[in-house]
Amino acid sequence: MRAAVLNEPFAVAVVDVPDPIPETPSDAVVEVVAACICGSDLWPYRGVHPTNPQQRLGHEFVGQVVAVGPDVRLRVGTFVIAPFSWSDGTCPACRDGVTVGCTNGGFWGQDGADGGQGQYVRVPFADATLVAVPDDPAPALVPALLTLSDVLATGHHAAISAQVGPGSTVVVVGDGAVWLCAVLASARLGAERIIIFGRHQQRTAIARQFGATDVVAERGRDAVRAVRDLTDGLGARHVLECVGTQEALTTAVHAARRGGFVGFVGVPHLDDPSPVSTIFDRSLSLRGGGAWVRTYLPQLLPDVLAGTLDASAVFDVTLPLEQVADGYAAMDSRSALKVLLQP
Amino acid sequence: MRAAVLNEPFAVAVVDVPDPIPETPSDAVVEVVAACICGSDLWPYRGVHPTNPQQRLGHEFVGQVVAVGPDVRLRVGTFVIAPFSWSDGTCPACRDGVTVGCTNGGFWGQDGADGGQGQYVRVPFADATLVAVPDDPAPALVPALLTLSDVLATGHHAAISAQVGPGSTVVVVGDGAVWLCAVLASARLGAERIIIFGRHQQRTAIARQFGATDVVAERGRDAVRAVRDLTDGLGARHVLECVGTQEALTTAVHAARRGGFVGFVGVPHLDDPSPVSTIFDRSLSLRGGGAWVRTYLPQLLPDVLAGTLDASAVFDVTLPLEQVADGYAAMDSRSALKVLLQP
Repeated sequence: MRAAVLNEPFAVAVVDVPDPIPETPSDAVVEVVAACICGSDLWPYRGVHPTNPQQRLGHEFVGQVVAVGPDVRLRVGTFVIAPFSWSDGTCPACRDGVTVGCTNGGFWGQDGADGGQGQYVRVPFADATLVAVPDDPAPALVPALLTLSDVLATGHHAAISAQVGPGSTVVVVGDGAVWLCAVLASARLGAERIIIFGRHQQRTAIARQFGATDVVAERGRDAVRAVRDLTDGLGARHVLECVGTQEALTTAVHAARRGGFVGFVGVPHLDDPSPVSTIFDRSLSLRGGGAWVRTYLPQLLPDVLAGTLDASAVFDVTLPLEQVADGYAAMDSRSALKVLLQP
Repeated sequence: MRAAVLNEPFAVAVVDVPDPIPETPSDAVVEVVAACICGSDLWPYRGVHPTNPQQRLGHEFVGQVVAVGPDVRLRVGTFVIAPFSWSDGTCPACRDGVTVGCTNGGFWGQDGADGGQGQYVRVPFADATLVAVPDDPAPALVPALLTLSDVLATGHHAAISAQVGPGSTVVVVGDGAVWLCAVLASARLGAERIIIFGRHQQRTAIARQFGATDVVAERGRDAVRAVRDLTDGLGARHVLECVGTQEALTTAVHAARRGGFVGFVGVPHLDDPSPVSTIFDRSLSLRGGGAWVRTYLPQLLPDVLAGTLDASAVFDVTLPLEQVADGYAAMDSRSALKVLLQP
């Protein structure tokens, strides 16, 4: 079969490669009906990510099942959508819905796997990975189905991660296909106001068609100021970051209202990747900051008064206020855990 | 009155300062019954944070109202708990529960405000800030009430931020009073398994008394490995970070199970503070990573098939697979938004 490969930066070619066949009982082979190029494919293309010789390419495709292993229930001829990674559907991560983190999963084009930019793809865990389209879709519907493979699902993930819902005010940072899909996904989830950053007229026109209500042309700090101006000085409760650069993430967190939600789906390429890259790689939620003490007191005080909540064991030294200096010295040397002062 | 001040690093003294009086109609003055020293007080004490001459100290106190402005409904004589910051109760952040981010709020001891480590404190927005204890508490209950001012509420915030609930498996990173309180708060919220890091026997004994079930003595990568060993190789779904150092946050994110929740309440002192410090300062939630496409497909596919969800406008160029190189070049030069390929 024919498949796209990358031999060195900027040198994409279509070459003959072996036809795939089912290699395990749960494999299927899909004949690709449509595939596409992702913004993230440009990282290896530009040489930013190292690649292997004859690196296969592409992780988004839809197509028809043409061969199956003996354990596969999907039938030959079924039209299917492939997520950008395969997953076994049974590991703890899959059971939690974190299919991208499947213990036995992998990414198309990586480590000897077929890429989506080719005529055929061998699909591991075919029943768990592929989603069947009930009837053979009309050709006109294929591009819309293909967006489910990555960009639309990724835009949806940004919106879900940022808890977008009915009535939400959302800021979407980016300027590519995922950014547009994050706008569309936010609108689908009921967002009322969708503020985007953008200067590229054709793209902002699509964004408006997808549901964007406000377009901010400024960048960086000025963009943050513009968002604040549009949101009573507060910032937006929901911010979707669809780029992954330091500047985009910085803009995103500053455009968020206090207590707000930032969904980030741009693969991080940061000045200092730790710990944000790990948060990304492990699909974590990071939340915290200074405690909302006044809010919690009415919930916690009754338990303390009832004697069922007692943290007083944290105080191991009690001193009169006049000896406060001794208290600081004791905590500094770790001979005291926490000093109680009596004025 | 007498109050603790810091003149230079390590030089804490108790000195005479002016007695506070209500300065605005919503002020109250509280006579401090008990205050304490916080781990975070050690940052200025050690000279890590710059301070002003005669810097007032302390942000945790309980006491009795002794004077009120004309607008205050709290009565003189009421026993009250002061959160570590004051808040007006009416700004958008306060209405969202993010009282630590109050537009008109502030922190005890900062910018001319009285500190908790003194005989009296002027309290702005007294009715919104202070929480009354219904009856005068027995002296033995005062230390437990004092923990509500910061450490217990902060431990609770870590647990709430990490979505701890009934049956949770929780890892708590730290070794101070907030760490212990995070254990206690997790137990109160119904956590079943609470894994802590610690080597200090007296402190781990309190942690066990507060509900810790497993004590890991290792540090860094070994600590992460130990947590994985205790959790079927997966890590914990809920991790509470109560230190703020680079190492603690790194340990926390690696100890979390994929798709898990990290609550962080240690004030960040990181190698590169951006964007984590902003996430902390603005009480944001950061969540995302690679999309859980396979999980979302059954939710999104019906809308695409019904024609109500159509992101196909992201494709502005269609090419045969054999011309894939032209597609990459077009996306690299930004002349194409997203290229669809037909094998």
